[in-house]
Amino acid sequence: MYQELKQRVLQANLMLPKYKLVTFTWGNVSEIDRDRGVIAIKPSGVEYENMQIDDIVIVNLQGETIEGYLNPSSDTATHLELYKAFPNIGGIVHTHSRSATIWAQAGIDIPALGTTHADYFYGDIPCTRKLTHQEISGEYERNTGLVIIEEFHQRKVDPQAIPSVIVAGHAPFSWGKNAVDAVHNAVVLEEISAMALATRSLNSGIKIQPELSDKHYLRKHGEHAYYGQR
Amino acid sequence: MYQELKQRVLQANLMLPKYKLVTFTWGNVSEIDRDRGVIAIKPSGVEYENMQIDDIVIVNLQGETIEGYLNPSSDTATHLELYKAFPNIGGIVHTHSRSATIWAQAGIDIPALGTTHADYFYGDIPCTRKLTHQEISGEYERNTGLVIIEEFHQRKVDPQAIPSVIVAGHAPFSWGKNAVDAVHNAVVLEEISAMALATRSLNSGIKIQPELSDKHYLRKHGEHAYYGQR
Amino acid sequence: MYQELKQRVLQANLMLPKYKLVTFTWGNVSEIDRDRGVIAIKPSGVEYENMQIDDIVIVNLQGETIEGYLNPSSDTATHLELYKAFPNIGGIVHTHSRSATIWAQAGIDIPALGTTHADYFYGDIPCTRKLTHQEISGEYERNTGLVIIEEFHQRKVDPQAIPSVIVAGHAPFSWGKNAVDAVHNAVVLEEISAMALATRSLNSGIKIQPELSDKHYLRKHGEHAYYGQR
Amino acid sequence: MYQELKQRVLQANLMLPKYKLVTFTWGNVSEIDRDRGVIAIKPSGVEYENMQIDDIVIVNLQGETIEGYLNPSSDTATHLELYKAFPNIGGIVHTHSRSATIWAQAGIDIPALGTTHADYFYGDIPCTRKLTHQEISGEYERNTGLVIIEEFHQRKVDPQAIPSVIVAGHAPFSWGKNAVDAVHNAVVLEEISAMALATRSLNSGIKIQPELSDKHYLRKHGEHAYYGQR
Repeated sequence: MYQELKQRVLQANLMLPKYKLVTFTWGNVSEIDRDRGVIAIKPSGVEYENMQIDDIVIVNLQGETIEGYLNPSSDTATHLELYKAFPNIGGIVHTHSRSATIWAQAGIDIPALGTTHADYFYGDIPCTRKLTHQEISGEYERNTGLVIIEEFHQRKVDPQAIPSVIVAGHAPFSWGKNAVDAVHNAVVLEEISAMALATRSLNSGIKIQPELSDKHYLRKHGEHAYYGQR
Repeated sequence: MYQELKQRVLQANLMLPKYKLVTFTWGNVSEIDRDRGVIAIKPSGVEYENMQIDDIVIVNLQGETIEGYLNPSSDTATHLELYKAFPNIGGIVHTHSRSATIWAQAGIDIPALGTTHADYFYGDIPCTRKLTHQEISGEYERNTGLVIIEEFHQRKVDPQAIPSVIVAGHAPFSWGKNAVDAVHNAVVLEEISAMALATRSLNSGIKIQPELSDKHYLRKHGEHAYYGQR
Repeated sequence: MYQELKQRVLQANLMLPKYKLVTFTWGNVSEIDRDRGVIAIKPSGVEYENMQIDDIVIVNLQGETIEGYLNPSSDTATHLELYKAFPNIGGIVHTHSRSATIWAQAGIDIPALGTTHADYFYGDIPCTRKLTHQEISGEYERNTGLVIIEEFHQRKVDPQAIPSVIVAGHAPFSWGKNAVDAVHNAVVLEEISAMALATRSLNSGIKIQPELSDKHYLRKHGEHAYYGQR
Repeated sequence: MYQELKQRVLQANLMLPKYKLVTFTWGNVSEIDRDRGVIAIKPSGVEYENMQIDDIVIVNLQGETIEGYLNPSSDTATHLELYKAFPNIGGIVHTHSRSATIWAQAGIDIPALGTTHADYFYGDIPCTRKLTHQEISGEYERNTGLVIIEEFHQRKVDPQAIPSVIVAGHAPFSWGKNAVDAVHNAVVLEEISAMALATRSLNSGIKIQPELSDKHYLRKHGEHAYYGQR
């Protein structure tokens, strides 16, 4: 019944070791079927090497397992909150990819410094505030989602224009039209995070020109886009 | 009719993932046939993994597609301006390779710091000035080429002696005798960019001795060269 | 008689080149059989590429070879002291993995800066004091073990909660339930060491929130753990 | 007649791309047969991928080609001077490996900061003085050798105890008992160069304890060595 959805989510999860975004069982990818009100997500703590389609877990929007014999990712509640708050996204990925995690640990927004960034992200990538003691000791994974949503809401950032966030002291989440697209954005996030680290060490005050950011983002996105095959 | 040219350009494009200069569809390589007044260039936004010879696009010097069913690279206009202004170059490559892009984002020339640099580049590798708002909002890709040409002209730099440039806030372009030679230079550019980053962090004021730069460049290039098999 | 133990130790040693923790013959892994009072350990100075099960050496707790035709690792005495002092560990690994060794050479504890660290290590990873001239000129490898034990004792650190150490001027040791688990911890140690280096260069004063460290460590370890499949 | 010597030199040259010490045709390895008064060395500017045993060139100690149809490495004169001045070495390798070259470009000795260094190198690895204008414009490659020899002589450094050097503004040379051993030392040199870069950025004043350097060097070298299989 959910075989195609599970197959896409399996494929997107297997991209994580391929693109060197994960170590061991770290990371997880999900995709939502909004018509049926379910998500498919990686099981918790399972190795990528031997992952099979039936290891993927189907969970409803209340977080209950609908299909599958393994526990879903411990980060499932974060995914669910993001799907509810961001109605236009179809897939989510969480990793501890090295360079993006470095920015998260430092607690600093990933600054837009060049066209590589602007081709995918329309502005700086937000770092959330720290979670409070109550948020951590309570429903921690759900609250992680709520803090991400709060950050985008307060900054008036469109999650489709900036499809990633870093959670302070933790690591990145990325999203996209579907699971594969979310992973695509996570790969780019890692690359621009690495570039930004060294760029700032060479020139600590540098920023991208706003008009160059506009140009590169809009030549790839929106109604006047002309990059690629259309 | 253009099969050999397209084959060489396909081969040079496939060197980009092999030498880890690109992610996904990023980057593009072209080669010019000056007798026939055409260039062959990578199509826009196409994955390297399954690229075929007939995906390569033939474009005339006015930018019109002569052969091929895909859109040419969105950077085609930059390539065309460089071919027109630099009559002795035969191939051009554009990447967002990590270390060279870091220098471009920082807006700083890549300094000549050792013989690895001097073996291929006869002096610092220029970083262009920023494009103006008008240049960006107008014919952006063409203007990128014009700003590169302006930089080489004003600095009186011979594009054959320094076969690369970094565009401020953007990324590098390299060129050479043909498409494969251009990619060869792009690989070296990435390596010396990485070396220069760490060299400057160890010793911020260091430069290569001018006579050592002369010696290494001239033992590989020009009429008195004695490196390699001749 | 010791074939299963030797097989597990061989497998764990072969993980070292797979996860790029070693160069040439560097590094060594052991596992203890506490019932029989022996450890199995890598032979000294042998290449991983052609290592066979019968190259693994069986040594008793006095350091005498019980089975095997090769010399055991020159670090055997360090392993033995750690097994004696830390009764709940079953496997030990020593590497010169790059980033952890950098912290050891710098003589600085590896600070807990994010959840990647907290998922495996419940606090900063100690760097030992320097060994004295006497400790170095005497039973050096045994004294290395004693200095590690002294560090954990004086700081009142539980070796199960922080299953790694860095020895000042030298390199890391990691341990775990068995040999494979020890190598698993060594892989994580290397990753968090690399992240910590760059995090501190971006934000020199940053630390993880203690409550976030508690949350991540305790959701994976102890009686209230809920990460993974149980 | 020189087939075994050429075979060993071919094998050692092929280790350079395997251990990622070279790009394209960069680097070269030689070995000397002191009884016959010849060295075998890589040809100049030839790709490693298709190198064959008969591409290796036999040169006598006056630098004349004895056997082989290709030009020997342009660095042959440097090798010859080192063989003449250092009578106990049997193989030499030159690379532009990234981290060692960074120290050479910075013009700074590679400091002994830990046991990884001390296991192979008994003290800091010297950076030569700059060559003079006359030395560069004259017999440049021969003078590079002479400047290396001068450095070891003036510092009273034993080339067997410190089997590498970095030439200011240029790159490293390593040597050993034979060609393979020289490459082995070049691999270690690259690793300790990378470690030293980051160690110094964490703790700018750190040095290894002299007694720890003694211990590690002497447990692997000399009459009281006990590391490995003997």
